[in-house]
Amino acid sequence: MKWPERVMIKEVGPRDGLQNEPVSIATEDKIAWINQLSKTGLAYIEITSFVHPKWIPQLADAFDVATSIERVPGVTYAALVPNQKGLEKALASKIDEVSVFMSASETHNRKNINKSIAETFPVLAEVVREAKAAQKTVRGYVSTVFGCPYEGAVSVEQVIRVAEKLFDMGIDELSLGDTIGVANPRQVEEVLGVLLKRFPKEKIAMHFHDTRGTALANVLMSLQMGMTTFDSSLGGLGGCPYAPGASGNVATDDLLYMLNGMNISTGIDLERLTEAALFIQHKIGRALNSHYLQAMASCRA
Amino acid sequence: MKWPERVMIKEVGPRDGLQNEPVSIATEDKIAWINQLSKTGLAYIEITSFVHPKWIPQLADAFDVATSIERVPGVTYAALVPNQKGLEKALASKIDEVSVFMSASETHNRKNINKSIAETFPVLAEVVREAKAAQKTVRGYVSTVFGCPYEGAVSVEQVIRVAEKLFDMGIDELSLGDTIGVANPRQVEEVLGVLLKRFPKEKIAMHFHDTRGTALANVLMSLQMGMTTFDSSLGGLGGCPYAPGASGNVATDDLLYMLNGMNISTGIDLERLTEAALFIQHKIGRALNSHYLQAMASCRA
Repeated sequence: MKWPERVMIKEVGPRDGLQNEPVSIATEDKIAWINQLSKTGLAYIEITSFVHPKWIPQLADAFDVATSIERVPGVTYAALVPNQKGLEKALASKIDEVSVFMSASETHNRKNINKSIAETFPVLAEVVREAKAAQKTVRGYVSTVFGCPYEGAVSVEQVIRVAEKLFDMGIDELSLGDTIGVANPRQVEEVLGVLLKRFPKEKIAMHFHDTRGTALANVLMSLQMGMTTFDSSLGGLGGCPYAPGASGNVATDDLLYMLNGMNISTGIDLERLTEAALFIQHKIGRALNSHYLQAMASCRA
Repeated sequence: MKWPERVMIKEVGPRDGLQNEPVSIATEDKIAWINQLSKTGLAYIEITSFVHPKWIPQLADAFDVATSIERVPGVTYAALVPNQKGLEKALASKIDEVSVFMSASETHNRKNINKSIAETFPVLAEVVREAKAAQKTVRGYVSTVFGCPYEGAVSVEQVIRVAEKLFDMGIDELSLGDTIGVANPRQVEEVLGVLLKRFPKEKIAMHFHDTRGTALANVLMSLQMGMTTFDSSLGGLGGCPYAPGASGNVATDDLLYMLNGMNISTGIDLERLTEAALFIQHKIGRALNSHYLQAMASCRA
């Protein structure tokens, strides 16, 4: 098998992780944690979301976090932006990269952002246009690519339709989300097989959730399809909003353990990463559910 | 990618699972559970171990369990046997298949069975000879194939040496154990790449632990190498003796979820399997840590 020599891990714990934790973390602890993450070798950290605090109270301090962290050269700091209003705040905070988001399935899109898919496009198009005008790179998230909690199966044609619209708007990278963690490797092979005929693999990131334990197998299949960018959340922070108690984002530490073992470089120091995981675990006040962390905790004890 | 059409799952929960649970399960509950498992479509269940109760008190009722369960035609019932004395009891219980076991690494072998590897061979050879004389099939387990908790790396030459000895004794199948869950897919590719030049893939089973979350990725790599027999423990029952609190055997339900999604048939009914998992979870008195079970539990609640 031909494996890539290098993979880019994009840490989404401070956003996708914390927004799904019931515990509220103090702003200063978030800042300290992101500063720690910046020194692990991670080259990309999604630090917060400029969604209205009414929807995500856990990240109401987005501006404070974005303007107070230490910006380490070489690290890209990104934030989620839902609309023009969010973008204004994000730009004022001097974020490096803006992430827009929508779903591949109609029902999830409506439940998540209160608009139809058709109504979402012009809102995102405006954000992308303005962000690009402000010299920012833009990432586009597509949720429910491999399945929807309301509609079940999602057709690859629907994913292509949304992806095409987002690329037409000018996004620099597309992140394909298995939002509820239902994907299997054969599906990943099939979906990527179709998508990679339309879009360059360098512009696509994979965003797997480990809800049913298949995330690393899906990463492995993606690696074999030539993919080299993966989103993950340290310690598996966040869990799954559709299945409380179950796993959420694939854990950065589990992903890194596997990649290290496979001799695929990431530039990230697993020991420093573990320290950062223990820091946020302590603040969250519960054992995070990454396999790596649980095995390490047990070995230390 | 060419995927196999069918895979054989060998359920080791009643043995590898229960022997690593601190809770003692009543004999009648074990029997009821194994009877339930027999009706899920599983074609192979390792039901107990005839190791001396001093070492594994949880399975002291081996004979009672083996002689009291309902034997469903088409299901192979197997048990672990350490020596001649254990074999006598196993044969008296009319078990279908006998499993002998040893480690690829010297230190783990000594700690686990109190003998050097060289001292172990003649003991196992006698068990295999007698079991074959009694018309039983014999499985040989090799532990620490992908790493040892005491010695670290284990050379593939050492695995070959042990495997060759076991096949020479007359075992029908070899089960390659990632006892402490350290394997990664590239290592699986490399180790199998060497082993499959010496031994037929039809005679090898893969026995992965999910301690660091890589088990299903390792299964995926094994499938790609042509492997079609996998050991697993329902609900991830058992955990890891070297890292209490961490995951142990790959969970049968996680494995089945992935294989079902990949359209690889096993003959096993996931719904009935889930019922059997809930039964033993209730008896164990703690939430089992398979991803599938946790996601399902949450969805039901």
